[in-house]
Amino acid sequence: MAHIIDDIYEKTVLFDIYGDLLTDKQKELYNLYYLEDYSLAEIAEEKGISRQGVRDSVKKSYEHLLDYENKLSIMKRYLRQRENLTKVISFLEAGDEASLDEAKLLAKKMKEVL
Amino acid sequence: MAHIIDDIYEKTVLFDIYGDLLTDKQKELYNLYYLEDYSLAEIAEEKGISRQGVRDSVKKSYEHLLDYENKLSIMKRYLRQRENLTKVISFLEAGDEASLDEAKLLAKKMKEVL
Repeated sequence: MAHIIDDIYEKTVLFDIYGDLLTDKQKELYNLYYLEDYSLAEIAEEKGISRQGVRDSVKKSYEHLLDYENKLSIMKRYLRQRENLTKVISFLEAGDEASLDEAKLLAKKMKEVL
Repeated sequence: MAHIIDDIYEKTVLFDIYGDLLTDKQKELYNLYYLEDYSLAEIAEEKGISRQGVRDSVKKSYEHLLDYENKLSIMKRYLRQRENLTKVISFLEAGDEASLDEAKLLAKKMKEVL
């Protein structure tokens, strides 16, 4: 699934799911760099730390988040759920008998694998 | 939501979600005690450790899993998703126009909050 989600989206979703496992300082720098789009130099100046210090922190945080995802696969499940919900909604929008049956089947399948 | 899920169900779901963050040894004892329903004494004998050692391990593991849940709330989201899917399926089973509209609304809401 990795190929269909872009880099920043992945970093945002990982942070949304696992961010509270980082320290407050790690969260702050990660958020400024990846989500708020400040540059390493801007963050370094604002926070009074070296540019390399900021780079090391956000890199390490991202690796932590990836480690959690490799163990728990919550993002993977989340993306699959979103994809299935999109399909259910399309079937419901179509509204014909066959589509409604598909929607029902898929909703039941989603509940089983959740 | 805690009041509607029983104790063992909670311990099983927490383990299913966060279990891979425990060590192999912790996983093994937790699984034997809470999921396979062996007694502390049986596990102690089988594993050649003290009854108190088994008790401490499974208690500590459970606390770890709860810590993760308190930070990440994945079980809470998961239970809410299941509940909403049950409602969507009921609306689809009913099949009248109003119920189908409800199903569509709820599916869209689920996708937003996922």
